[in-house]
Amino acid sequence: MRKLFIVLFFTLLSGLVNAQKLERIEPMFWWAGMSNPKLQLLVHGANIASTDVQLSYPGVKLIKVNKVESPNYLFLDLEIAADAKAGKFPIEFVQGGKRKLQYTYELKNRESSPTRIQGVTNKDLIYLLMPDRFANGDPKNDVVKGMRETKLNRDSMYYRHGGDIQGLINKLDYLKDLGVTSIWITPEIENDMPLVSYHGYAATDHYKIDPRYGTLALYKTYVDKAHEKGLKIVKDIVHNHMGTGHWFYTDLPMKDWVNQWPAYTQTSYRDEPVMDPHTSEADKKKMLDGWFVPSMPDFNHRNPFVQNYITQNHIWWVEYAGIDGLRLDTYPYNDPDYMKDWAQKIKAEFPTLSIFGETLVHTAAAQAYFTGGNTVSRGFDTELPGITDAVIKNAIYEALNGKSGWTDGIFRLYATVAQDFLYQDANRNVIFMDNHDMSRFYSMVNEDIDKYKSGMALLLTMRGIPQLYYGTEILMKNYSNPDGLVRSDFSGGWPADKSDKFTAAGRTPKENEAFNFVKTLANYRKNNPALQTGKLMQFVPENDMYTYFRYQPEGTVDSDRGKTVMVIVNADDTAKNLETSRFAERMVNVSSATNVISGEKLNTIKTIAVPAKTTLVLELN
Amino acid sequence: MRKLFIVLFFTLLSGLVNAQKLERIEPMFWWAGMSNPKLQLLVHGANIASTDVQLSYPGVKLIKVNKVESPNYLFLDLEIAADAKAGKFPIEFVQGGKRKLQYTYELKNRESSPTRIQGVTNKDLIYLLMPDRFANGDPKNDVVKGMRETKLNRDSMYYRHGGDIQGLINKLDYLKDLGVTSIWITPEIENDMPLVSYHGYAATDHYKIDPRYGTLALYKTYVDKAHEKGLKIVKDIVHNHMGTGHWFYTDLPMKDWVNQWPAYTQTSYRDEPVMDPHTSEADKKKMLDGWFVPSMPDFNHRNPFVQNYITQNHIWWVEYAGIDGLRLDTYPYNDPDYMKDWAQKIKAEFPTLSIFGETLVHTAAAQAYFTGGNTVSRGFDTELPGITDAVIKNAIYEALNGKSGWTDGIFRLYATVAQDFLYQDANRNVIFMDNHDMSRFYSMVNEDIDKYKSGMALLLTMRGIPQLYYGTEILMKNYSNPDGLVRSDFSGGWPADKSDKFTAAGRTPKENEAFNFVKTLANYRKNNPALQTGKLMQFVPENDMYTYFRYQPEGTVDSDRGKTVMVIVNADDTAKNLETSRFAERMVNVSSATNVISGEKLNTIKTIAVPAKTTLVLELN
Repeated sequence: MRKLFIVLFFTLLSGLVNAQKLERIEPMFWWAGMSNPKLQLLVHGANIASTDVQLSYPGVKLIKVNKVESPNYLFLDLEIAADAKAGKFPIEFVQGGKRKLQYTYELKNRESSPTRIQGVTNKDLIYLLMPDRFANGDPKNDVVKGMRETKLNRDSMYYRHGGDIQGLINKLDYLKDLGVTSIWITPEIENDMPLVSYHGYAATDHYKIDPRYGTLALYKTYVDKAHEKGLKIVKDIVHNHMGTGHWFYTDLPMKDWVNQWPAYTQTSYRDEPVMDPHTSEADKKKMLDGWFVPSMPDFNHRNPFVQNYITQNHIWWVEYAGIDGLRLDTYPYNDPDYMKDWAQKIKAEFPTLSIFGETLVHTAAAQAYFTGGNTVSRGFDTELPGITDAVIKNAIYEALNGKSGWTDGIFRLYATVAQDFLYQDANRNVIFMDNHDMSRFYSMVNEDIDKYKSGMALLLTMRGIPQLYYGTEILMKNYSNPDGLVRSDFSGGWPADKSDKFTAAGRTPKENEAFNFVKTLANYRKNNPALQTGKLMQFVPENDMYTYFRYQPEGTVDSDRGKTVMVIVNADDTAKNLETSRFAERMVNVSSATNVISGEKLNTIKTIAVPAKTTLVLELN
Repeated sequence: MRKLFIVLFFTLLSGLVNAQKLERIEPMFWWAGMSNPKLQLLVHGANIASTDVQLSYPGVKLIKVNKVESPNYLFLDLEIAADAKAGKFPIEFVQGGKRKLQYTYELKNRESSPTRIQGVTNKDLIYLLMPDRFANGDPKNDVVKGMRETKLNRDSMYYRHGGDIQGLINKLDYLKDLGVTSIWITPEIENDMPLVSYHGYAATDHYKIDPRYGTLALYKTYVDKAHEKGLKIVKDIVHNHMGTGHWFYTDLPMKDWVNQWPAYTQTSYRDEPVMDPHTSEADKKKMLDGWFVPSMPDFNHRNPFVQNYITQNHIWWVEYAGIDGLRLDTYPYNDPDYMKDWAQKIKAEFPTLSIFGETLVHTAAAQAYFTGGNTVSRGFDTELPGITDAVIKNAIYEALNGKSGWTDGIFRLYATVAQDFLYQDANRNVIFMDNHDMSRFYSMVNEDIDKYKSGMALLLTMRGIPQLYYGTEILMKNYSNPDGLVRSDFSGGWPADKSDKFTAAGRTPKENEAFNFVKTLANYRKNNPALQTGKLMQFVPENDMYTYFRYQPEGTVDSDRGKTVMVIVNADDTAKNLETSRFAERMVNVSSATNVISGEKLNTIKTIAVPAKTTLVLELN
């Protein structure tokens, strides 16, 4: 009797436990005509693994149904023939011959438009901003019911401030006027975390725009509107980690979906073990598999289901929105083999897409190690086209703030540029003076407007893809300890703000001086191919002055033609005269110059007067 | 009448001018059976170009007689057949069918002995010394009549002090006892300069030992005696320049034998233009063709006669004396294309010879650029096997003297070693703490004996070929400004010296402490292949301690077997305990250790006590 009761109890219980649900399939739709015929669908729902799966659609084969540790997941391997047509079809989840659940899957037609997936290159100027801190275009979404962070508090750097995608759309003309050609926003996908959720690097849903920023449709609108205005879009993506609030972290498909440790283990944050031929495996594992912070579980990139999930998610976003470039967060912390495979798959789908990885390392050699096509890594090609060039940033700071010495001051910058032999193409490096994790440039030059202009002139004339951090053009300042301090709101982005620094009237005279400097040079750069794709020739600094030229060699096609630009950095506190005879190689048949900022004409250029702490940008005539 | 007189005058004059002399032929002899059949003889003598040249010897063909700008030179292109036999033959200089002059040329048999041309590798410890400052074995040659420098003055760092090759021969046992396996002396060829001739880098005759040092025969004796004792020989050679007192500088074969400038032009001493993809030709020319100092004319390496002259001279020395390695002075200042060709020709003749170039540059990437087989220089292979690793020297200083930080202190050293991915093989790097151009190590650690020992332990356990500068083992000190200060005499090398620091009795207790430290470790290294050819595994420093292992992987052949060595650097001012569990990869099946210096046995190695400012060297058991 007791035995019977027990059997009955478990039968009932298992019946309850086995009640299947279908909560999501990801990617939720796909496209006909992709380069890779394979697609792996993640199916999530209570006990979904107890069903059989059926589908029938011309050109689509269900190759394999993968069951994993959790009964709440299935991974469906599909193969989509090259001639499969766009259309909808049911995916059926069946038990005992009876259909229990169904999902209507769609293969869409791929869009084609010349403004989609244009690539972001050295022809561009990227503007980086944090959407929560830039402009609030829709106060209705400031706090979204049901989400874990429940407060808006503009007085605290840790809380959400209400900026959103609509706010950014409203300011596209501001950016275009400034001379920006490309926008990179910190991650806009859902970060439903209880605290400090505004930064965006703790994803909780890979297929959803954070409701505080807007909707999927609004994101697409943002991309389309930017494209209409001639602005390109960079999406910030994170391979390495998610947030602890992620829906699949609270119901893991399998234990090794994330990197598990006996006790919480943080990454060492040291890039050396990744490239060190003498490294221990222990150090490498700690760097790659250690967690970034306790609230960000670390993806296990050696798990093939994880690989497919992440890679397809990125393909989905590019194809869905027609994005022009991807910025890869915390690049060196990712599994190198996976990242190579990822890059190959992404490039196979989108040959015109630009990709650059965040590599906050300390030498040009280490940066080069991570770049695709480099030769330093002895046979291991990351296939990563671009990197964030922190080394040249540090060298520019040293040039502006340091004292001249054999390897110091202006010579550091010269010597750093000379190390471009390490890269396949340093023109793909994204160069910058600051970003959301760093002290702001204006503070780092001690609020010296001359040094500020000198640095901005270097940023906009040096080889590579310049990136400007929001607010740098209006002299926003502060130090990054803690980082929230460099993530202040852009004044004027909120209706109640006292001053609207998106307008000349709202800016102080000094802010306008900075703004106009950047705007003048950015727009000049936008119209002079020599500063975009032109070659660079630099000369050994002498007398605290560093001179380089941007120019196009003989035989450049007409569409890339432009005026040779001579850049002279006087790193000293005193005005100087520069004798130009030693630059003869680049000053053939020129006799005068125009100061690009002031418009002043220099009728002789045998000797050029360079004010203290100044970078002169001269168009040679 | 007047016209007749003038004609007569010039006829007589030209008769006088045309009186031919034969002053030298270089190389003065050669060998049968060299790999390269070509040989170009430089013939020098007044008006020698007005003669015809004849020779007849089986297997030797005179291919071409080159006349150049000066009538006092001929360059004879010979081709020596592979089967030409050793022997002597006349070279005749003929005018109007009459023999005017004759030189008996000799093709010698190549010597073969297992101690010749052994190569200097990471199995070795190199001792660098300046022969004028080490030991005076022959007071008779202190001042040589007829030479331009006429005084000996041991009280002045600028004058000759009388050290010589015989002095060095007398001290070979001292070096062997210390654990040295290879000797590099600064150039010993003739430097007949009026001032500061002792350093040896201003050659005045490429085929002659400086008479103040000895004779050609004595040099060969020195090499042979060293070889008998198991010591190898490195010869210091200079491609870049000569001294203004050089016999051929005072009678140039052609104007472009040296790099000529409209006005004296000094090199920029900047290596960047050599590798910089953005360099100007002007900067590159200044670096490569500018003179090192006014007293050292700069060879024109693009002149094929110069190329042949220098290359053959080096081949001649190696073949003549059976030298084991060459150290190339001022490597980055030489023409890269010529240096590549030079290296190929030298290696073709002497596959076992070691070669390393002086590259006092500032980054691992720049060092790597100059090394053969590197991949960083994008298709240009210097073919230079080794370099002097100044970057790791600087990193060791930073580890010893700096304060620990993300890229500072001990982390600098760790990160520098991690950059070994840049080299084809960092084991070929010559590592050192000081040399004749640098402040002495003991001064650089502020005469702190603990730091001194820590640095010596690093030098003798790190990957690469360690090089010790003479006197460092007895705590010789001083700063290199001016450089003569770091070139003091080794006390005891002169009979009249107050103390003989070649003997324990002549050294102070502290000097013996240093000497015994170096001797113990050098001799241990000499007998443990793990410290020579073993692999290196390093771990990310923690708590101001840096740990690495030298070990041989599974499958190492027996002759290379050795004991695993664990090296622990405590860079802090306080004693510490090191937990070793994170080094498990390299501590399999070991339970105890022996301190290589003290002989102390550590019966447990789960936790290891490391004194302040100490590098522990432990053999694992």
